[in-house]
Amino acid sequence: MFIKQSVDNLQHQLQQWRRDFHKHAESGFLELRTASIVATTLEQLGYAVSVGKEVMSREDRMGVPATDILERHEKWALEHGAETRWVEKMTGGMTGVVGILDTGRPGPIVAFRVDMDALDIQEDLTDAHLPFKEGFASVNDNMMHACGHDGHTSIGLGLATILMQEKENLKGTIKLIFQPAEEGTRGAKSMTEAGVVDDVDYFIATHIGLGIPLGEIVAGDGGFLATTKLDVEFKGLASHAGGKPNEGKNALMAASTAVLGLYGIPRHSEGASRVNVGVLNAGSGRNIIAPNAFMKVETRGVTSEINDYIREQAFQVIHGAAAMYGTTATIDIVGEAMSSMPSEELVKIVANAARKSEAISNVTEMNLQPSGSEDATYFMERVKNRGGLATYTIIGSPLAAGHHNERFDYDEKVLSIAVDVLARTAFELSNK
Amino acid sequence: MFIKQSVDNLQHQLQQWRRDFHKHAESGFLELRTASIVATTLEQLGYAVSVGKEVMSREDRMGVPATDILERHEKWALEHGAETRWVEKMTGGMTGVVGILDTGRPGPIVAFRVDMDALDIQEDLTDAHLPFKEGFASVNDNMMHACGHDGHTSIGLGLATILMQEKENLKGTIKLIFQPAEEGTRGAKSMTEAGVVDDVDYFIATHIGLGIPLGEIVAGDGGFLATTKLDVEFKGLASHAGGKPNEGKNALMAASTAVLGLYGIPRHSEGASRVNVGVLNAGSGRNIIAPNAFMKVETRGVTSEINDYIREQAFQVIHGAAAMYGTTATIDIVGEAMSSMPSEELVKIVANAARKSEAISNVTEMNLQPSGSEDATYFMERVKNRGGLATYTIIGSPLAAGHHNERFDYDEKVLSIAVDVLARTAFELSNK
Amino acid sequence: MFIKQSVDNLQHQLQQWRRDFHKHAESGFLELRTASIVATTLEQLGYAVSVGKEVMSREDRMGVPATDILERHEKWALEHGAETRWVEKMTGGMTGVVGILDTGRPGPIVAFRVDMDALDIQEDLTDAHLPFKEGFASVNDNMMHACGHDGHTSIGLGLATILMQEKENLKGTIKLIFQPAEEGTRGAKSMTEAGVVDDVDYFIATHIGLGIPLGEIVAGDGGFLATTKLDVEFKGLASHAGGKPNEGKNALMAASTAVLGLYGIPRHSEGASRVNVGVLNAGSGRNIIAPNAFMKVETRGVTSEINDYIREQAFQVIHGAAAMYGTTATIDIVGEAMSSMPSEELVKIVANAARKSEAISNVTEMNLQPSGSEDATYFMERVKNRGGLATYTIIGSPLAAGHHNERFDYDEKVLSIAVDVLARTAFELSNK
Amino acid sequence: MFIKQSVDNLQHQLQQWRRDFHKHAESGFLELRTASIVATTLEQLGYAVSVGKEVMSREDRMGVPATDILERHEKWALEHGAETRWVEKMTGGMTGVVGILDTGRPGPIVAFRVDMDALDIQEDLTDAHLPFKEGFASVNDNMMHACGHDGHTSIGLGLATILMQEKENLKGTIKLIFQPAEEGTRGAKSMTEAGVVDDVDYFIATHIGLGIPLGEIVAGDGGFLATTKLDVEFKGLASHAGGKPNEGKNALMAASTAVLGLYGIPRHSEGASRVNVGVLNAGSGRNIIAPNAFMKVETRGVTSEINDYIREQAFQVIHGAAAMYGTTATIDIVGEAMSSMPSEELVKIVANAARKSEAISNVTEMNLQPSGSEDATYFMERVKNRGGLATYTIIGSPLAAGHHNERFDYDEKVLSIAVDVLARTAFELSNK
Repeated sequence: MFIKQSVDNLQHQLQQWRRDFHKHAESGFLELRTASIVATTLEQLGYAVSVGKEVMSREDRMGVPATDILERHEKWALEHGAETRWVEKMTGGMTGVVGILDTGRPGPIVAFRVDMDALDIQEDLTDAHLPFKEGFASVNDNMMHACGHDGHTSIGLGLATILMQEKENLKGTIKLIFQPAEEGTRGAKSMTEAGVVDDVDYFIATHIGLGIPLGEIVAGDGGFLATTKLDVEFKGLASHAGGKPNEGKNALMAASTAVLGLYGIPRHSEGASRVNVGVLNAGSGRNIIAPNAFMKVETRGVTSEINDYIREQAFQVIHGAAAMYGTTATIDIVGEAMSSMPSEELVKIVANAARKSEAISNVTEMNLQPSGSEDATYFMERVKNRGGLATYTIIGSPLAAGHHNERFDYDEKVLSIAVDVLARTAFELSNK
Repeated sequence: MFIKQSVDNLQHQLQQWRRDFHKHAESGFLELRTASIVATTLEQLGYAVSVGKEVMSREDRMGVPATDILERHEKWALEHGAETRWVEKMTGGMTGVVGILDTGRPGPIVAFRVDMDALDIQEDLTDAHLPFKEGFASVNDNMMHACGHDGHTSIGLGLATILMQEKENLKGTIKLIFQPAEEGTRGAKSMTEAGVVDDVDYFIATHIGLGIPLGEIVAGDGGFLATTKLDVEFKGLASHAGGKPNEGKNALMAASTAVLGLYGIPRHSEGASRVNVGVLNAGSGRNIIAPNAFMKVETRGVTSEINDYIREQAFQVIHGAAAMYGTTATIDIVGEAMSSMPSEELVKIVANAARKSEAISNVTEMNLQPSGSEDATYFMERVKNRGGLATYTIIGSPLAAGHHNERFDYDEKVLSIAVDVLARTAFELSNK
Repeated sequence: MFIKQSVDNLQHQLQQWRRDFHKHAESGFLELRTASIVATTLEQLGYAVSVGKEVMSREDRMGVPATDILERHEKWALEHGAETRWVEKMTGGMTGVVGILDTGRPGPIVAFRVDMDALDIQEDLTDAHLPFKEGFASVNDNMMHACGHDGHTSIGLGLATILMQEKENLKGTIKLIFQPAEEGTRGAKSMTEAGVVDDVDYFIATHIGLGIPLGEIVAGDGGFLATTKLDVEFKGLASHAGGKPNEGKNALMAASTAVLGLYGIPRHSEGASRVNVGVLNAGSGRNIIAPNAFMKVETRGVTSEINDYIREQAFQVIHGAAAMYGTTATIDIVGEAMSSMPSEELVKIVANAARKSEAISNVTEMNLQPSGSEDATYFMERVKNRGGLATYTIIGSPLAAGHHNERFDYDEKVLSIAVDVLARTAFELSNK
Repeated sequence: MFIKQSVDNLQHQLQQWRRDFHKHAESGFLELRTASIVATTLEQLGYAVSVGKEVMSREDRMGVPATDILERHEKWALEHGAETRWVEKMTGGMTGVVGILDTGRPGPIVAFRVDMDALDIQEDLTDAHLPFKEGFASVNDNMMHACGHDGHTSIGLGLATILMQEKENLKGTIKLIFQPAEEGTRGAKSMTEAGVVDDVDYFIATHIGLGIPLGEIVAGDGGFLATTKLDVEFKGLASHAGGKPNEGKNALMAASTAVLGLYGIPRHSEGASRVNVGVLNAGSGRNIIAPNAFMKVETRGVTSEINDYIREQAFQVIHGAAAMYGTTATIDIVGEAMSSMPSEELVKIVANAARKSEAISNVTEMNLQPSGSEDATYFMERVKNRGGLATYTIIGSPLAAGHHNERFDYDEKVLSIAVDVLARTAFELSNK
């Protein structure tokens, strides 16, 4: 079939894109160079391109880096290939991109979503790690594509290429969504709130790897846990611990008490829940009553309702603990994702499209095993709530090391397989 | 001198009173029989007697027993010698008595304060314990004069006797205050607030024992710690711990968190402080999220300011901990006492009066070593604040076992020694 | 069919037994009167009867009441119909009974297990509660058949009656097990460890009610949570909180710290877990450093492995917390139950037997919803581990109020329905 | 008198030394340049000089910086004026110096101790701060003489100069001790354990400032709190908080529990005590069960016994808390000081010597107000235990800002005043 051949021809280009993005890894809301290349490429292919505030709600972003980090990286991006005309629109962490292909023929609006951000991890710089050996390890300290989003972005561009080539065989509209800041589940909400998927009939988000072998896919993954990421700041009052212990307000005690209270939030009877205080930093000196404490917290639940319960309890625990010691606590939600069940009808369509691909040997329709969290669920819930269908599809690949590991790597063949499966799905949906 | 002889003649009577009070021990706010005998005796001696609401502010009492306990004991008191005419005025825990001797001659108002209540302790009922062997152990279960207040009441009556005998040699007015509920520091505030000492020029409270040998006194004890006694009730919501753990509000967790917070209240840089959770009872069943918890707490400080600091911190800790778990806390102040420094001028007068007594071999003027707590400090502070002088005088006696021990007992000779010292002080002051 | 008619004839007798047991409710390990009546009845029917140490391992009992309670109740039982010859063998909480019917013909050993104990609950004594209105409310204060074990015991005796009547139609051996102390999951282990089911081929435990309507059954309930019940005693050292705070060892602080640690035991990734501190009692007086603390704790898990994990963590938390404050903790396991999956083959046999009963309108084969805990699981695991088959069958009945409620009551028709279903099962199995 | 004049002549030199040391501030165990200059100067003056292991016990040092810090600073010191011959002996944090002047005449051994280390504080670099304005602010980032030890070292050298000039008027032996790492109370123990004061008859440690006005001294300060500085490291096991919470060992929970336990250590009935957790850093990432935690703790007591009590309780709390969560805790004592009462006889001698100085307008003999901590107490206790006399003398000066403040500064006149007072004391003692 036509797709197979087109996609095969694309493999070299996919690998080039992927290695370029990998080498220039940019973490969440800093994807200026990546997004600039995406925008230009889409434009050159003939897509209508929107970026920045056209596709993101500024106030619905979560966990945006500090201004100095944003500014420093913007400078770097401009020096490393980002185009000023895009950067101007994306400045200050507004790095989302949407490309639209309107066939001009009546038909459904079909959206695909990929993500573009890297992680704040230092990549392994030894020959044991292929990206280093082959010369495309990240040039940015402590930023690494250790989850495969470099591949996702490339898949998005590959899909854009194929669908534009075959434009005449499509109906309706294709929408390609390139999301920033999926790590920490920070970016999807702002694109959803900007209305990017409000008119979408079919929505498919994609991830590679995740323990699925090459040549296999999961058409619908419904096991993502709802989650909230909280940064908590306790403010007290410093005082000399030997001389005036009674004059201090001990933020470190408040935080310690909150920690025990958080882990003690009751299990929920209707399904798995989680809470973690992953980081706690408090105090200024051995002999000072600690005037400050900072905690990184996350809550999770198999359903959004259970996560909401845990998050509300967490707020109660944190503010109560702060009050015990005369301190105050400020809680910032720096990331959030929902749970979302794939639409069975769409899962079947994706599964059938995949089964027609020569590259696919095995298709699992639905997976409900609880696993990590994903903010693509924001798009999914919005689409479903407005009458559309949504799914989350996993395209398998062997991994050199697990996701978020400093030696994470995958088989680049997964890139063309993904494009093949998604393009087939697009044709299927477009011609329904 | 006249006093010596009069007092010697009184010793037998003092002992009789004391043994009668000891045998019919009544705990705080239940001293109906004791107070009735005191009132009648004062009346017979010729004192103007006021009781109940004439000398107590109902709402300023703390830690009053529950109504059923008050009623049950009232019945007992009437069956064991309390007179209806007094009981009617003292009903519901209004058991204070004041006797006034107005000489008709210009002169100062001199007040003496003794206390009447027993402790909720089961007395030792073996021959090793003299009150049992001699047949005057408490007939009331779990009520025992284990601190010497039986002696104090007798001393008050003995002093009343002597002073009335020698009325012609006195000037001004003598005020004899018989206070209820000193244990738990619950009764003095209500008499102070009723204005009992508002017109007093010289105030002397008395205690026997306290580690001072027979024949010795401390004219001014300034070491009493300010204290507050708190009863805390947490209310949550029961829920099946296996089936619906998330639907409970865990009062036991709130209380446990409060406990750790309370012990963690910072030490005060300006002097010793204390906090204790002596009792914690929580929960209803092994498999139920505990809907309730009860704590007995006390705070102390070498000054009232330090105790105030600890108490305020305690309130903050308790309410914060309650809020952490969605529970509520109710805090009742069931006892309170201040710190109070004896007036040096009055201390010297008491010391000099004592030195004239043949019974006294050694006089310590002032003791500032921190020790227990006493609510006579309410009277003392009020008197001093209104321009009077106040002190707290300890009359020594050997003890069979420590205060609050089930075998506590003292040498009854201390009774006449105390009357002697106090009567001499009264003459000294009356004739200043 | 014969069974229906026999069972119908039995209904009056079943009701009589049930009401007699209900009226003379006896809680766990105190079932002397109940067990004595069971033993005599079985004997009269022709069963070989074993009791006491013949069917229980003394040291494998958990949560046995204190000696004075055992002795007081033994006296009561003898005064209310227990026979001395049985009581002598059952003294000290050895109240299990087993009746054996050996047909003399080759065939399987089929065992049925019922339980006999009441709960430590005060029964409602108003006309709104049928057992009171009809005159068979419990005569024992704070003991009530609020879970239906009175019915279970009656069902056991009814089954004994029918099977003996139809002895000639049976093969192999019937074993009827009357277990003490199921509440708190305290008694099954000791009968299992005594070897009572070591030779059993088919084992069926039974419960009535549990939310199943009249005329319906669940042939196999696999949702029981594994559980452990822990009594924890902390021992510290008393000290005056004002005078010598540093000389105490604070058991109340140790317990409070343990509470927070227990609720903080991490959730298990493989399934639901629970932990609860239902009761905490600590301390002796407001101004004393608490020398003692007592906690009632329970752990649960959807599998025995998960419960084992929680229990082990609980031990670690408790001993660590005790050590923090220089106290010691003693942990008694006062109850324990496993999770156990019914044998599918036996579930089908029970289901088919039930379907043949006119009284049964609906049969659910297997239920896996997590619910409470049951120590019949000890018998089940032992039987399965030795190659036999086991199940737990629920016979439905409407309830006046939920299990463990003071107004709990059921439709007595369930008694004959249960006997019918179980007798049919016995015939089916006996003749396989 | 001769001293006055000699000392006046010295003022310029004292100021030069002080400003040089201030500009080249070196923190504890890093004082290579300072100690090298001290050693060379003493040598040039004619003292017998011992350094490094001759005057320090390697294993009795506490809180020695990490090897890389030692090595980096050694390089810096050699580049900034330290002499290789001394550095070789002082390498690895062995920076103590002792200079001995043996008069050859029989007489007592009189020792003076000064300290040389700066603090890890970033000095204020604005014109509001005189050392910056005058060009002698610290060239080392985050190292600053903010406590006056630059002055102490200069005073030591000034005293060395005067005493050598007046050698003929002295008897016995003069020992000048230049101690490293007083901040954090880390260095004195190692010099004491090396035997530096084992033969000393009179020992005088000195501090400038501390709230005393210029021209005044406190001859004996006995208010130093005993203290211990603890670094605590908890080690647990990382695990994914969403995927495998039950596989982690949570060091952050252990530390939080320890924090609450530490602040809850009972107050001591015999005097003030303190405990503080000034810093807590734990965890590696939001979604990881924290495998590590680090705490900076300090304990204090008005007596060494009370500090010992608090420290022992702290160990118990920390190890118990670690055990609760299956983690381990390692506790390093990184600083320790005793309480020590000045010898009254020596206090009087110092006071009398000071009174003879024209520069001194007021002498306080003894101060017992609890204040900070000082490890000169190690020397004091050793000298007193071996039959000598010891004191700690404060020489007053106005301060631009409090000790340990980034704008700390003093009046350089205090330098010659101190030399004057100490030299007079030396003559007094030498000629006793």
